[in-house]
Parts: sequence; structure tokens; C-alpha cells
Amino acid sequence: MATMRPPRLGPWRTKKAPGSMPGTLSIDPSMPKPVIRVIAYGPDALVEKPVESLDELPGLLAEHPVCWVNVDGLGDAEVLTGLGQIFGLHRLALEDVATLHQRAKAEPYGQQLFIVTRMVFLNERLETEQVSLFLGERFVLTFQERPGDCFEPVRQRLRKGQGRIRQAGPDYLAYALLDAAIDQNFPVLEAMGERLEALENRVMDRPDPSSVSAIYEARRDLLALRRAVWPQREMLSALLREENPLFAPETRLYLRDCYDHISQIIDMVETDRELAGGLLDVYLSSVSNRMNEVMKVLTIIATIFIPLGFIAGLYGMNFDTASPWNLPELGWRYGYPAVLTAMAALAGGMLYYFRRKGWLGGKR
Amino acid sequence: MATMRPPRLGPWRTKKAPGSMPGTLSIDPSMPKPVIRVIAYGPDALVEKPVESLDELPGLLAEHPVCWVNVDGLGDAEVLTGLGQIFGLHRLALEDVATLHQRAKAEPYGQQLFIVTRMVFLNERLETEQVSLFLGERFVLTFQERPGDCFEPVRQRLRKGQGRIRQAGPDYLAYALLDAAIDQNFPVLEAMGERLEALENRVMDRPDPSSVSAIYEARRDLLALRRAVWPQREMLSALLREENPLFAPETRLYLRDCYDHISQIIDMVETDRELAGGLLDVYLSSVSNRMNEVMKVLTIIATIFIPLGFIAGLYGMNFDTASPWNLPELGWRYGYPAVLTAMAALAGGMLYYFRRKGWLGGKR
Amino acid sequence: MATMRPPRLGPWRTKKAPGSMPGTLSIDPSMPKPVIRVIAYGPDALVEKPVESLDELPGLLAEHPVCWVNVDGLGDAEVLTGLGQIFGLHRLALEDVATLHQRAKAEPYGQQLFIVTRMVFLNERLETEQVSLFLGERFVLTFQERPGDCFEPVRQRLRKGQGRIRQAGPDYLAYALLDAAIDQNFPVLEAMGERLEALENRVMDRPDPSSVSAIYEARRDLLALRRAVWPQREMLSALLREENPLFAPETRLYLRDCYDHISQIIDMVETDRELAGGLLDVYLSSVSNRMNEVMKVLTIIATIFIPLGFIAGLYGMNFDTASPWNLPELGWRYGYPAVLTAMAALAGGMLYYFRRKGWLGGKR
Amino acid sequence: MATMRPPRLGPWRTKKAPGSMPGTLSIDPSMPKPVIRVIAYGPDALVEKPVESLDELPGLLAEHPVCWVNVDGLGDAEVLTGLGQIFGLHRLALEDVATLHQRAKAEPYGQQLFIVTRMVFLNERLETEQVSLFLGERFVLTFQERPGDCFEPVRQRLRKGQGRIRQAGPDYLAYALLDAAIDQNFPVLEAMGERLEALENRVMDRPDPSSVSAIYEARRDLLALRRAVWPQREMLSALLREENPLFAPETRLYLRDCYDHISQIIDMVETDRELAGGLLDVYLSSVSNRMNEVMKVLTIIATIFIPLGFIAGLYGMNFDTASPWNLPELGWRYGYPAVLTAMAALAGGMLYYFRRKGWLGGKR
Amino acid sequence: MATMRPPRLGPWRTKKAPGSMPGTLSIDPSMPKPVIRVIAYGPDALVEKPVESLDELPGLLAEHPVCWVNVDGLGDAEVLTGLGQIFGLHRLALEDVATLHQRAKAEPYGQQLFIVTRMVFLNERLETEQVSLFLGERFVLTFQERPGDCFEPVRQRLRKGQGRIRQAGPDYLAYALLDAAIDQNFPVLEAMGERLEALENRVMDRPDPSSVSAIYEARRDLLALRRAVWPQREMLSALLREENPLFAPETRLYLRDCYDHISQIIDMVETDRELAGGLLDVYLSSVSNRMNEVMKVLTIIATIFIPLGFIAGLYGMNFDTASPWNLPELGWRYGYPAVLTAMAALAGGMLYYFRRKGWLGGKR
Repeated sequence: MATMRPPRLGPWRTKKAPGSMPGTLSIDPSMPKPVIRVIAYGPDALVEKPVESLDELPGLLAEHPVCWVNVDGLGDAEVLTGLGQIFGLHRLALEDVATLHQRAKAEPYGQQLFIVTRMVFLNERLETEQVSLFLGERFVLTFQERPGDCFEPVRQRLRKGQGRIRQAGPDYLAYALLDAAIDQNFPVLEAMGERLEALENRVMDRPDPSSVSAIYEARRDLLALRRAVWPQREMLSALLREENPLFAPETRLYLRDCYDHISQIIDMVETDRELAGGLLDVYLSSVSNRMNEVMKVLTIIATIFIPLGFIAGLYGMNFDTASPWNLPELGWRYGYPAVLTAMAALAGGMLYYFRRKGWLGGKR
Repeated sequence: MATMRPPRLGPWRTKKAPGSMPGTLSIDPSMPKPVIRVIAYGPDALVEKPVESLDELPGLLAEHPVCWVNVDGLGDAEVLTGLGQIFGLHRLALEDVATLHQRAKAEPYGQQLFIVTRMVFLNERLETEQVSLFLGERFVLTFQERPGDCFEPVRQRLRKGQGRIRQAGPDYLAYALLDAAIDQNFPVLEAMGERLEALENRVMDRPDPSSVSAIYEARRDLLALRRAVWPQREMLSALLREENPLFAPETRLYLRDCYDHISQIIDMVETDRELAGGLLDVYLSSVSNRMNEVMKVLTIIATIFIPLGFIAGLYGMNFDTASPWNLPELGWRYGYPAVLTAMAALAGGMLYYFRRKGWLGGKR
Repeated sequence: MATMRPPRLGPWRTKKAPGSMPGTLSIDPSMPKPVIRVIAYGPDALVEKPVESLDELPGLLAEHPVCWVNVDGLGDAEVLTGLGQIFGLHRLALEDVATLHQRAKAEPYGQQLFIVTRMVFLNERLETEQVSLFLGERFVLTFQERPGDCFEPVRQRLRKGQGRIRQAGPDYLAYALLDAAIDQNFPVLEAMGERLEALENRVMDRPDPSSVSAIYEARRDLLALRRAVWPQREMLSALLREENPLFAPETRLYLRDCYDHISQIIDMVETDRELAGGLLDVYLSSVSNRMNEVMKVLTIIATIFIPLGFIAGLYGMNFDTASPWNLPELGWRYGYPAVLTAMAALAGGMLYYFRRKGWLGGKR
Repeated sequence: MATMRPPRLGPWRTKKAPGSMPGTLSIDPSMPKPVIRVIAYGPDALVEKPVESLDELPGLLAEHPVCWVNVDGLGDAEVLTGLGQIFGLHRLALEDVATLHQRAKAEPYGQQLFIVTRMVFLNERLETEQVSLFLGERFVLTFQERPGDCFEPVRQRLRKGQGRIRQAGPDYLAYALLDAAIDQNFPVLEAMGERLEALENRVMDRPDPSSVSAIYEARRDLLALRRAVWPQREMLSALLREENPLFAPETRLYLRDCYDHISQIIDMVETDRELAGGLLDVYLSSVSNRMNEVMKVLTIIATIFIPLGFIAGLYGMNFDTASPWNLPELGWRYGYPAVLTAMAALAGGMLYYFRRKGWLGGKR
Repeated sequence: MATMRPPRLGPWRTKKAPGSMPGTLSIDPSMPKPVIRVIAYGPDALVEKPVESLDELPGLLAEHPVCWVNVDGLGDAEVLTGLGQIFGLHRLALEDVATLHQRAKAEPYGQQLFIVTRMVFLNERLETEQVSLFLGERFVLTFQERPGDCFEPVRQRLRKGQGRIRQAGPDYLAYALLDAAIDQNFPVLEAMGERLEALENRVMDRPDPSSVSAIYEARRDLLALRRAVWPQREMLSALLREENPLFAPETRLYLRDCYDHISQIIDMVETDRELAGGLLDVYLSSVSNRMNEVMKVLTIIATIFIPLGFIAGLYGMNFDTASPWNLPELGWRYGYPAVLTAMAALAGGMLYYFRRKGWLGGKR
């Protein structure tokens, strides 16, 4: 996985300085050291073994119809250069392998095809891992940032010889790996959908300030996801459009299926983005509704009691005895009950007015 | 119908794990078991019957110029595989049949054309159901998620021999089914329009917090509808663009008509989406207008009575007797009436000021 | 005119059920009965007459180089079918004639060209009326929803033989009719512009809640207008792109002119839409400005009088006589004036502070 | 200049009724009368003179390699028709000359090229003036709405024979005029940029309600500018794309330069539009910040003095003497100072709480 | 660097008046005087020297396979014209060199290719500097606005003969320079990302009014960056699309790599723009949350103490002795404690109500 930090900032971690030689391998020493495993197979036989020394590879390549060499970890420039020499990789492609955060792409280099794609993982935040794939006439060479991937089912199919994968060439293996990486998006999107739904309920039922950052983070993850998947569609569309001799016509049908999947994923990402975009509006309405409720209570209490308080204040004035014109009610027998009644009547009148205006009650 | 839940989350219900073999039929056991009905016909004869055993099909296919085999329910992988063998379906296509929530598309597989489209239903929420259609030289094979569809009028036309449908080939039948599925959108859009209009009135007349979620739900349904119909246009456009020998030139005219309909539907969906998007603004304005009204009452009551209360408080101070400078009005004969008059004058002055400022009255 | 209701909901009034036979004429019985008028002309002669029976038409068609048959009202399926037989209209086209709320389009059917466009009217709300036009080698056949159109100036030019219209063929007449329908948008847009300007002034000067619905209605009308005109541009663009033998090269120059006009109209609609979209923001700012003004008065009154009231309350406490520490000011000769002065000073100080903060005064 | 009113409403001033004859010259009688000036030149000679009678023109056209006829004012249909006959202008083009508020465009009419473009001026509001240009093999004919233009530097270059303008043909002159009209946008945009910057400072420092209309006006002017320049790019792109024999290959390099300029202008307009769009948000935040400041003062005063006032009210209750339980503090020697101290402590406590909550002080 | 002012206003600093002669060199006299350095090299030799007089150049050009002439500063028209004559530059291209704020572009002029691109720097604000590059068969000629660039690593590679740069032709050098200028964007974007993240934390934790202008400035810088990079992609796409003989096929692979980088940069800019756009919403929510908190305190204090104050006011009325009906509680033994208890009960009841309504407490 690329980073524990959200991929939004597209951390451009290569140490390669602008203007340095193209094809420079700038290795981040903190990256895991490469671990190489090979699965060499044909319809009849399959050999799976870790590779201790690069010298073992030419023999395996010669012996078996198809060789899948998988490299986990990019932390050793020498190993990468060595592989480059054995497989005849273009140094620009090799530089791209070592430079993380590439866009997905498919580029022909002479007889080989160089494909970059991304696997996504949804832990607490969305994370992506770059997968580089070289497709040659007799081999598939894959580079991953670190151990752990979504290719185990493909390995199982190879080991058990399920379906046509052992009969087919390296193009079919390349397809199977791309397909596995793309389909990895579906459970991620499902989890994302559940997260959005939970957010939506929370925002509608009990909006609190932390919802804003939750929404913002969801939007950020969706942006990152979108940035990961759009180039994958371009990549597949280029593979389908250009008549590449490495892909057999039958395999092209399978690539078309991949293209459908990625289109569907993009549809889902865009839909989720629209929904996430709308959530902030819902949050703001929800907050403003609660605010209004609070304000209405203030208004009602204040508008009722401020006038009543004024009346009480009137009768608290010290005009008592100097003149008969002064607050005669103070001398009445039923003055006080009369004032209380008047106050109650005033309060009741205002409440009635408010209710008629619709400012009270369950409805609004 | 796909789900009782809104289709927004694009529930990816396939149990197929990422990386598993392409062409794997991953059947959700909770899906209804397949029920097969066949309508085999030519200009002169029509046979309509349920199919108990798949062995009946080859005979029917040989006997009649056109066979429409309809499968309701996808809950049995064996039946699907059996049909795949009888009709020579590509396993990728068959996998798509079993995988719900495909985008609409049209894909040639050798001599056959594989079409996926969606029917929409508007119950309380918008629901969509996937329809998969195989068009061969002598047959149309349709798969639906569960019983109940919008194809009954087509069946009636077949039974009664209305129009040219009995004379024409399977391409015309395929068109008729696509057309029925597309036209199904019109009543849904009409209902959606009415829903929007009701929402609009409600939002303008008596906005309450639940309006927000109603607006959000309408937007969600429109998003889902949009996601369902846009790929249908692409699908029809591909059918029209590519010279497919399965479609007779005359039938292409009919497909063009379908294309017009779906374009019109997309126009309507986009218009409704814009309107729904504007509703939240209207709601917020409406709520803020009501809030302002409430606030204005508070302001007016408070600004009038707080100063009056202060004056009453002044005369409640216990300065009475110590000095002639202390509140001499208390000793006047008409002190109290004078104070009351002053208070009334002050209140009247403020009311006049507010009215002139336009803060009172019916207008605003 | 289509409906008295706004066209936003795109009332899909056809009674044709989804899945029914294509080419079905589903006539709304409440629509006006067809009234047919023909203008048959050549360079030398012009006959204009109402058509009582369809049998008159073949004679007129044979006699004159160009025949313009205009049908007002679609309320009789028999008349439409009869016209279809005389002019050899494709039944899909005929179905489109009877189905209101079509998008503008131009479709070749064999030797004929079928064009759908819309006339717009701005009464209280925007209304649109569908015009269907068939262009053949010797005739133009137009269908309108109901009597009343914008073609009278074309009829005058025909009658008076102004310009080249009498010399030219039916393609030029078709152009002239399209041009009249398109130019009809200009006065509508002018009125719309005036309406927006009035709204703008109202929103800035005296925003009231009803402005919101007025803005919303303007946006709805502009959406409807946009939905009417965009397909017209596509239609004209298709006419210009495809080399249609029915249009003489000279007439194509005129169509290009139409295309310019519709582009200009679309520019204007989009500009108006942006302006209308901005109006709600202006309204909300305007309302919030007024609200702020009200709130500031409340704040100032309250912040001045609440502390003063507290001071008055202090001297109203009944601590008078028990102890020399109790409110000694009550016993001073100038205690009351001193307290009044202190209050005035406090109020003055606060006013000064508010003025310095910019919360008072004409500026803000 | 077109109008003193903003061009937003696209005042469609033509009196030509919808449906009237194409090529109708509908002259607004209030437009200035045409004033014609000709500059006829070749490498060796240059004649510049006003044209009193149209009869002078054929001679000048025959004598000199290039003739630039400029017409200021469109208020006389006869003059326009006369020019149309001399230069063989198509009547549709002539109608466009007389119809103001055309979109920029370039249209071939036989051997001639008809170009419409716009000059912009920024007085108090943005104003645009339509310039129509006919390019023939030996002439350039320009029409402007009224006297006053940005072509003076081109005239100077012609008079002084600077550069290659006198050696080159009319295509180069047409380019020079287009270039002058396009470059006119740069100072307008610079002024617009300064206006936006001033607005921005005003909105951040002292937002007042009139800012809203200033922002709205800026957006309107930018919309108008955008509507003027986008079609100019289309026009230039069409000129560059279509191989027009009127433009020498060398001149096409210059047109490409124009295209770069207009692209740059569009970039600037779009950037300014985004900035102007953001200003309203900034204004609203600014206003809401001020409002918050005001509200906080109210809150603090009210929350401090309302409880204090309540305490004072307590001791103003007339419970004095009836029972020892009644307000015993009233009888204490230090009762009053104790109450005052308690009040001060309460006020201080609340102030401390507010400060800790961050509701006071310079920071926020 | 272009300006200390933000590039948003696209200061159009050329003094060239609209309508002046194309190819006019309008030199801003305040610009730095040109300083010329040449690096002439081949596989075997490399000469690097400052150029005092333009006469030295022809010799160097003849002697070495590749000559890179770099000009820092554009403040002397004579030098530019001199270079134009030596290298045979088109005067339109030369005019573009002297006119700052060009869009990035690539234009063939006969045997030469003229490329404009931009270097970006992020000091306090984003700044861009125009780099013009002429690629000929044996030379690369670069113009920069002022000393200081990002080409030092390329110079080092030339000096040390690293990689194939000394073996390759001028096309490879041109690529290396473009690549250095493009990769310069990565650290700028990284810094921008950190700025956005800091802003985000600030906006969420302690939103203050200055955040608004910080957000607005970030958006402005991103707009400027976007305006700088989009045309660079168009430029590279044009270089890749058009078969230009100046670029060897091998070098085209490297240009494709540049194209990938600029695509990735654009992705990052657009992502950052979306995030920056969302920040204002977060700010507004954050501010409104704080406001709500403040308002809630006001509401609670006021709604509790206003009624209590009213009760206290009641007992302050001077109804004491006139009638037994007058405030009998005043004569009770436990009247005062009873009133206090009633008040406490009322306050407690209201607090309980508020807590149940969720208006108090840590949660919201």
C-alpha cells in the first residue's frame, strides 16, 4: 500500500530531481526490499518457487511456455536494473516502475507492452498501490510496492489448472491480473456506499460538527478513487483500440469485459461523488433546522415574557401615594388578580397568534 | 425487481470474488428459480408453452422460424449453463447475465448479439431490473431477474398477429422488446415529474425538515434513473453505428426511433435533475424567509419593550424621599400619566420607524 | 400550443402504452380536429384553399410544381392515416407526428425528409408547439397541434410572390418555414430578458419571498426553452452535414443562416440561464443584508438597555435602611442625577464603540 | 457601439419580423447614416478619400491592387444595397450586416469570404460593436455600427508603408483588421482585472450590500465578453481549418497567431469568471463574519446582564418584613456589598468561561 | 519570474498597442538586459562560455554538432533582432518571445520548431516564467525572462556526459529542457498540497475570517497553475500527434513520457482545485457551528432568566397592603423560600427539557 496518509495529496515521493537524467532509478531506501517469486507453467507443468538469484530466471524462461515473475517491493535499484537487463526493459519504463503514483497507462515498447495500474484498498482511508506489468511473448513481469495483493485467486487457478488459464499464453495471464485488480474496486465501492449511507443517516438524524469532516474525507477518498480509476479506463480503451499483436483476438473479448467493469465502476464512483456532494447541503439544512428550532423557543419565551416583565415593572414604580392618578389599580381590591389575569390573557393571546402563524407545534 | 433498497449504492451482489475465473457463474441462492416460457412462431403458426425440460428446446428451434425463449429468475446455475450449451452462448456473456447491475450494452459474440438493458419501476423508490437478451439468427433469448415485466403488450401482438411482427424475423422481436423496455421510462418519468411538482409546492408553502430528505431521495432516484438510461443510449448508438448483419435495414429505422425515445428520456431526466437540484435552494430560501419573519417579531417586541422596561425600572428605584432631585415626577400629580404617555409615544415612534424601514406589514 | 401547464414535466400525453405496436396512432380525443389548408403554387400561379376531402389533394399535387399542405390539429386518426397513404408517409414518422413532445430532429425516410421542430410562445409561462414537416420532391406537408402559428408572413410572401419563394422548389419553402419557427425565438428571448431584468431589480430593491418562486419559474422556463432549442441545432447541423439531394446547394446557404440563428439563440439562452442562476444568490444576499440590518438594531437596543435596566434594578433593591453600606447613593442629594448621568455616559460610550466598529450609520 | 445598455439581454433590435423574406434589410432609422471612406493602395501608391457617391468606387477598384472600403453607420438601406450590387454581395450576408448582435463567424459566399467579428469597449459597462468584413480578390469591405474604431494604427501603417502591409494583398489587410479587433480585448481584460481586484479588496475589507450588485454586474460583463470571444475562436479555427484560396499560406501563419491570442483571451476570461464567481462566496463569508461579531457582543452582554438583572430583581421583591425567612440579606450589615461582590464574581466567571471558549478576544 | 503580483490577472504587459504591426518587438525597458551563454557540444567535446558579441555564434554553430544558446533577460530589442537574423527566426515567433504571458504552444515555422512553455515557482504566491525555445537542425535556442532556472541538472548532465545526452541531437536536448520545466511542477504541487492540508486543519479547528482570503488565494494560485499546465498538455499532444522530422522516433518515446507527467500534474491540479473548492463549504459549516454554539448559550440563559426575572418583577409590584388579594405570598412565613424553590424548579425543568431536546451537552 502506498501510504498511510490519504493519497489525495498525491505525495510525489520520488527523490529524482526535476531535470535529472530520464531513466534514473530513484529508490526510496525506506521501501521494502524486493522479494521475487516465479510461477512458470504450461498446459502440463507448473513450477512455483521463490527466486534467490536473478541467474535462475533465464533457465526458467527458456523451459516453460509462460513465466510470471512477481516482484514485491521496490527498495533495491540493483535488482530492478538486473531484471531490466534480463527482460530487455526500456529504461523509461523501469523509471516508471520505481516512481510511485503513476497514472494507469499502457505503452508499447518495441515487442513488449508496459502496463501500469492500481489496486485499491479501503482501510480507514482509501489506499492505492501501484502495479507495473510487463507483457512479453513468453513472460509476464509484475512489480508491486509491497507484499500483499489481490492476485491469490489467480495463483490458485494456475495451480489447480482451472479453466483455460494454463492453456493460454501470457496475454491471458495479463488479462487475469488486470481483471483481478479492477474487480478489487467492487468491494471497496460497496464499503464506500455503506459509509455514505451511514453518513447520510447520521447527518439527517443527529448532525454534529464532526460530520463535516467526515463528509469532506469521504469526498477526498472518492476523489482519490476517481483519480485511480479514470486512467484505467483510458488504458483499457487504448488496449482495445490499438491492434496489439501480443493480445490474441479471443483475449480481446476478455479485455472488453474488463472495460465494461471499469465503466461500471466509474459510474458508481461518479454517482457516489454526487451523493457525497449533496450531503453537505443536507447537513447544512439539518443544522439550520435545529438552529431554527432553538431560535423559535428563544423568540417565543422572550416575546411572551418581555412584555409581561414590563407590566410587572410598571406596577413596581414608586408612584404609590402622591396622587390619585398614580397607578390607581394598586389601591383596588381586585387590582392584583386583575393584573395577573390581564397578563395571562396577553400571554395566551400571543401563544394563539404564534400557533396560528405555525411557529409552534410538532409540524414545523 | 432488483432490490427493495434504492439502487444508488449499486449493490454489487455477485458473490464472485475478485480474481476468480472469468465466466464463473456466481448464483445468489436467494434469487428466484428460473421459469422458462417459449413463444415459437412464424407468419402462420404460433406455439406458446412453458418449458419443463431444456430438451424440448432444440425441437422448437428447428420447427419455427423464430423462437423467443424467456427466462424469469436466475437462481439455478445448471439451467443457465444448459441454455448456454443449447444456444452456444459465450461464457463471458453468460457470466454477465448472472451478474446483476450490469450497464446497458450491446456486444457481438461471433454470430450472436448480446444486449443488456434495464427496465425501471417506480414503486415507493425507483427500482430497476436487468434484462439480458441474446439475438441469434433464429431466436431471441431473454433473461429477467424475476417474474413480472413490461413485455405483455408484445406477447399480445404476437398472439394476435398484429402488425408485421409475425412476418418479421427475430431482429424485429428484439427491437420490440427493447422498445417496450425503453418506453417503460415514460410513465416513470411522468410519475417522477408529479412527485417533483408536489415537492415543489410543499417546499414553497410549508417547508419542513423532512422536505430535505424527500429532495435528497428524489435526487437519488434521478441519479439512479440517469445511470440506467445513459448507457442505453450508448448501446443503441452502437447498434446503429455498427453495421450488424443481424439487423435488417428496415429494422434499423425502428432502432433509430428507439434512439430518439431514449434521447428524449435523457433530456427529461436531465431537466428533472436540474429542477430537483434547484429545489434545495428554494427550500433553504423558504426556511430562511420563515426564520426572518420569526426573528423580526422578536426584534420588534424586544426593541420596543426593553427600553420601556428600563423606564419602568427607573421609577422603581428607591430614591424617593432623600432629596428633591430624586425622581421629582414621583411627586407630581400627573407624573404617572405623563410617564405612561411618554412610554406610549416612544413605542409609537419606534413602530413608525420600523414601518418606514419596511420591517412590518404584509409586504415583507 | 401544447399545454397550459409548463412544459417542464414534459407531459407525455400519448396514450400509447409501452410495448404497443410501433406506428400506432394514439390520438388524444381532446385534441382539436384537423383542419387542412393547401397552398399550391408555381412561378406563375397560386391556389390557396381549404381542403374538405382528402380526394382533392392528388389533383392539386399533380397540377402545381409545389404544394404546401398544412394540417392544424391532430385529433382524428383517420385523416392522418389518409394523408399517410396519399403522401406515402412511413408509419413511424406518422406515429411521431401524433406523439407530442418529440425532440426536434430530421430523418430521411426513403425519398422524403421528415423534420420535427417546435414553435415557442411566451404567454404567462413558456409554451411550445410541435411542428412536423414532411419534405417531398413536390410538396411540403406540415402538421401543427392547433390553429395559430408564426407562418403568416411566409404565406404573405407566397401570395405576393415576393423574393424567389415562388420560383424556388419545396426545399426553399421548408427552409422558410423552419426559419420562421426559429426566428420566433428572438421576441420570446427579448421578453424573457426583460422579465429577468425586472426580477433582478425587484430582487435587489425589495426582495420578498415570492421572488424565489419567480426566479424558480424563470429558470424552469429557460430550461424548457433550452430543451426546445438544443435539438433544433442538432437537427440543422444534421441537415447541413448530410448531403441530402432534396436541398438544392443554394438552399443550403439559407439553412446555414438558420444554423447561425439557432446558435445565437442558444448563446442567449445559456447566458440567460447563467444570469437566472445567479439571481438566487443575489436574492439570498439581499435578504441576509436586510436581516442583518434588523439584527443590528436589536443588538444595539438590547446591548444598551439591558445594562441600564440592570443598574435601575440595582437601585430598586430593598436594601434601603438597614445599614450605611446599603446603597449609600440613595441618601445623597445628587444621587439620582449622578446615576442618570452615569447611565447616559454608559449608553454614550457604547454608541461610540458601536460607531467606531462600524455597526451604525449609513455606510453599513 | 451597440447600446448604452449592457449587451447581456442581447437586444435583438432588428425590426425584421419572424418569417419575413431572407435578405430583408431591416434598418433601424435611429442608426447613424453611413459614412464611407476608402483607402486604395499598392506597393507604390496610396489614395485615401471619403466617398460621396458610390459611383466613384468602381474606378478606384480597377485602379489599385487593394481597396479598403470602410462604412461607418448602417442607417441607410439604399447605400447598403448599392454596395451590395457593386461588390456582388450575397443578400443573406448583407442582411447579416444590417442585423446587429450576430455571432462572430466566417462564411464563404462564392469567391468572397464574409467575416463577422466584434470590437469590445469597456466604458462604465462592457460594450461591443459589430464589425462585418467582406474579403474579395481585390478588396476589403468593412461595416461598423458607428464612427470610432480601433483600426487607426492599421491606417497609420498603410499610410506610412510600414512593414509588408502595402506589399501584401487584401488577405493581409483583413488579417491586420481582425488582429486589431482581437487585441482590443487585452486592455479591456486588464481593466476588468483591475475592477475585479478592487472588488475583491472591497468585499474583504468592508462588504456592503452594494457589493452584491457590483459582483453581479462584473459577472454579467464577463458573460457578455465571453459570448463575444468564444465565437471568434470558432471563426478563426474555421478559417485555419478550411483551405481558403483567399488566404495566402504566409498569411495563414498570421491567422494562427490571432488564434493564439484569442485562445489566451478566452483563458483570461474564464479565469476571471471563476474569480468573479468566487467573490460572492467571499462576500457572504465576510458578511457572516461581521454578523457573527455583532451577535457575539449581543450574546455576551445579554448573558451577563440578564442573570444579574434577575438577582437585582430578587432583592427588589417586596418580601421585606413579614418573616425572618424573607430575604435576610436585606437586613445584614454587609448584605449589599456581598450581593454586589457576588454579582461581580458571576460576571467575571462568565467572562472567563467565554474567553476560554474563545468567544472573546482578537483571535476570533 | 514574471511578476511579484499574482498571475491571476494575466498582466498583459506588452506595450504593443492593438493594431500595431505584427512582429513588432515591444520591449519593456524595465526587463533585465539579455545575458547569453552557449553550450556547444558533441559526443567528444563540450565548450561552455558566455557570449559577449553575437558574432561569436556562427563559428560555434558551424564547429559543434549541437549548440544550446540560452538568453536570460529580454530587455534589449537589438540583441533579439540580431539573434533572429543569425538563426533565421520568424518575426512572429520573435514577437511572441518578447510578449510575456503567452500560452504554452508548439508551432512549426519552416524548418524550425518554436515552443513556448512555462516554469512555475512557489514563493509566497505562485509565479510563472515564460521559456521560449527554438529547435533547429543543429541548435536549441532558449529565452528566459530573467536569470535563474531549473535547467542546472541538464547542464550538469551535459558537462559530465551522463547518459546519452551528448550522443543525441538537439531534439533530445529540447526534450530534456521541456522535461525539466514540467517536472518542476511536482515540488510546487507538493508544497501546494501541504498548504491545502494546513488550511484544512486551520479551517476545521479554528476558523477565522482570514481563512477566507487564504482559501481564495489558494484557489487563485491553483487557477493560475491550471492555466499554465493545460496548454502544456495540448502542446505535447500536438508534438506527439504531428510527425515532425525534427524529433527522432526514439526521442518521441521520451516526449510521451513528458506527456504522462503533465497528465499526472493536471490530475493533481484538478484534484487540488476540487479540494480547495470544498474548503469554503467546510469553513462556512465550521463558522456556522460555532455561531450555533454561541446562540445556544444565549438562548438557554435568556429563556431561563427572562421568566425568572418576570417572577421577581411580579413580587416587586407595589400591591402590598391595599387588599388581601394582593400578593398574599408576601405575607406568608415561607413565602420567599417558596418563591425561590418555585424559581429553581422552573429553571431545572427548563434545563431538563433542553437536555432532552439535545440542546445541551458535549454531543451537539
